[in-house]
Amino acid sequence: MSQESIYLDYAAATPLDSTVLEAMILYFSDVFYNPSAPYEGGRLARDALESARSEVAQVLGAKSTNVIFTAGATESIQIALVGLLKSGGYAVIGATEHAAVRGCVRDFPSRIALADNRGYITPESVRKVIQDDTVVVSIALADSEFGTVQPIADIAHMINLVRHDRREKGNKTPLYLHSDGSQATGSLELKTSRLGVDLLSLNASKCYGPKQVGVLWVRNGIVLEPLVSGGGQERGLRSGTENVAGAVGCAKAISMAQTMRYDENRRLQELRTYLLQQLEQIDGLVVDGHPKKHLPGHLHVHISGLDSERVIYRLDIDGVYIATGAACAANKGKRNPALEAVGMTPAEADGSLRISLGRSTTKQQLEIAARAIKRAIDLERGL
Amino acid sequence: MSQESIYLDYAAATPLDSTVLEAMILYFSDVFYNPSAPYEGGRLARDALESARSEVAQVLGAKSTNVIFTAGATESIQIALVGLLKSGGYAVIGATEHAAVRGCVRDFPSRIALADNRGYITPESVRKVIQDDTVVVSIALADSEFGTVQPIADIAHMINLVRHDRREKGNKTPLYLHSDGSQATGSLELKTSRLGVDLLSLNASKCYGPKQVGVLWVRNGIVLEPLVSGGGQERGLRSGTENVAGAVGCAKAISMAQTMRYDENRRLQELRTYLLQQLEQIDGLVVDGHPKKHLPGHLHVHISGLDSERVIYRLDIDGVYIATGAACAANKGKRNPALEAVGMTPAEADGSLRISLGRSTTKQQLEIAARAIKRAIDLERGL
Repeated sequence: MSQESIYLDYAAATPLDSTVLEAMILYFSDVFYNPSAPYEGGRLARDALESARSEVAQVLGAKSTNVIFTAGATESIQIALVGLLKSGGYAVIGATEHAAVRGCVRDFPSRIALADNRGYITPESVRKVIQDDTVVVSIALADSEFGTVQPIADIAHMINLVRHDRREKGNKTPLYLHSDGSQATGSLELKTSRLGVDLLSLNASKCYGPKQVGVLWVRNGIVLEPLVSGGGQERGLRSGTENVAGAVGCAKAISMAQTMRYDENRRLQELRTYLLQQLEQIDGLVVDGHPKKHLPGHLHVHISGLDSERVIYRLDIDGVYIATGAACAANKGKRNPALEAVGMTPAEADGSLRISLGRSTTKQQLEIAARAIKRAIDLERGL
Repeated sequence: MSQESIYLDYAAATPLDSTVLEAMILYFSDVFYNPSAPYEGGRLARDALESARSEVAQVLGAKSTNVIFTAGATESIQIALVGLLKSGGYAVIGATEHAAVRGCVRDFPSRIALADNRGYITPESVRKVIQDDTVVVSIALADSEFGTVQPIADIAHMINLVRHDRREKGNKTPLYLHSDGSQATGSLELKTSRLGVDLLSLNASKCYGPKQVGVLWVRNGIVLEPLVSGGGQERGLRSGTENVAGAVGCAKAISMAQTMRYDENRRLQELRTYLLQQLEQIDGLVVDGHPKKHLPGHLHVHISGLDSERVIYRLDIDGVYIATGAACAANKGKRNPALEAVGMTPAEADGSLRISLGRSTTKQQLEIAARAIKRAIDLERGL
């Protein structure tokens, strides 16, 4: 990152942590062997891969045999959702889910669990759209637009009741809860027993780990149909020579973030409060998302009628990097459906700014950034 | 690699080249931005990604808009083959194709083009199994077991004639030639116009580039059905935040290997000849694959009745790393079908050794390795 710029888009990407890179480097050119190879080098690579798997499993409080390394969270989500839906049945997804989730269910029958105007999805809202043939519910731990943290344990509890009901009625259709933990990998609780989920997708690249590396955790006994067969790696669900360096980096990044999260979350929360105090002086600014249940460093605001794209270009010139919404090719020139899902008008949606803080964010940076944001909005308003 | 060991399994994995790593490192923690982000950092990442794409395109003599970065060759192959077969029609694959190709066609109707006892697949052999509803033929540039280089340009020519025939007969079924260039990425001609292929999969990790990064080149105008939708990156064919560092490393590795290949191929060829001279003294040793059309550093041999797995374990103790066959989880405890495809008996197949040389291989290493191989075989024979 250049010294002058102030990066406030950690929800879109995080830099690779230097400790994580250090852990990976051995596996680039030294222990570079194919983990399926039958000699010592191969065993060393295999051992590193399995240690990484155990490290992730420990964070999840899960068995390592249920942890699969993937080429990113999008792939984790695909393996989970398509793997369940291929054999038939309906899906239910949250109204604010990422394009990665929406894309998976496009070829399958699905229904949407509505969010309230804070982006919050209650168990009742999910319950309403579960049918007798729904096989999977997918609700993110926290969404990427508003950073609203969902009541996933309560949703899991409700799903358990539905399962109980089904058993009573002799309905043998299984029902699983998948959660996209991409945005939450660095900051929220990931113990699967506390979350109550059946499948969990994690993203290394959003918690200072390597890009295009992810995790899928699958509860014992759940059988997924592989998208495509191949070399049979990762329990046959992710064929291709394993990316040992990536897995090592992914595990290190997740476990580091989880160790740091109590202190770091408090720090980010304080910084967010400070930033909000500065921005609330702006006329017409509305804070989106849930006022309490949100990711610690995530702030989504809007000013109806503002051209936020132009604001972002002005800020870019000042070296302040923020987003209009989830940075993703699918959203190019289109509004993120999550904005409409919380009842925003087009004028409100187009006036949205997403500001996400991270490990290198300082109060001083936010002071400068807040001034720049105010100035940019003033200029946009012709003030 | 430990100083004492002699690595002769470059067909299974190659170390990351230090120049390649150097090119990648900027994109880990510095220009780590999401290429879809709308500010300068995002544009820098996007520029790096597009430069990498151009670098690959130049090697292929192709337009960069037709180059897609993927999470490895297995994924490239899946996007190509499943993307063509999803809309219906038969596939034809070579008898010695990798599990990545075999896996793709498992869910679709397909036929096998036979190989001769050298693993060579002639245009005639492919022609025999093309039907009126065949939509894709997939033949590797060189196979991973024997390293036999296929007459891909001749196969492409034959396919052109079939297309011509179809047009004459009013058969509108398209017919495409895909080639898995995984084993060949570092050493063979990759100009798509000379190869005559319509789709080409490449593997960075077999030519001293990063693992889990690959390329798929798709000829202009060919429409592939995406496996799953998502964020819409890479022309909608490979959703997920782009691995910029990986793409940069992949491009660098491919272009470096292609620049070096004339000299390096000659060097490897000479080393292979030297190794073969040493090994030919072993009683009952048979050289497999094509005597002339083979990858320069690839040597496959067998001794009928030998327990090659035990030989490999003995060699492992001596620090000499070679393979029994394609290192791939799918082959664990199973014979690679390629062995049977060239008419080898089970006793011959189980007595197979694959020795593949690479950039760090020296004549001195081969002298030591050859002695160790002879000794290990002698011990196995109770001599």
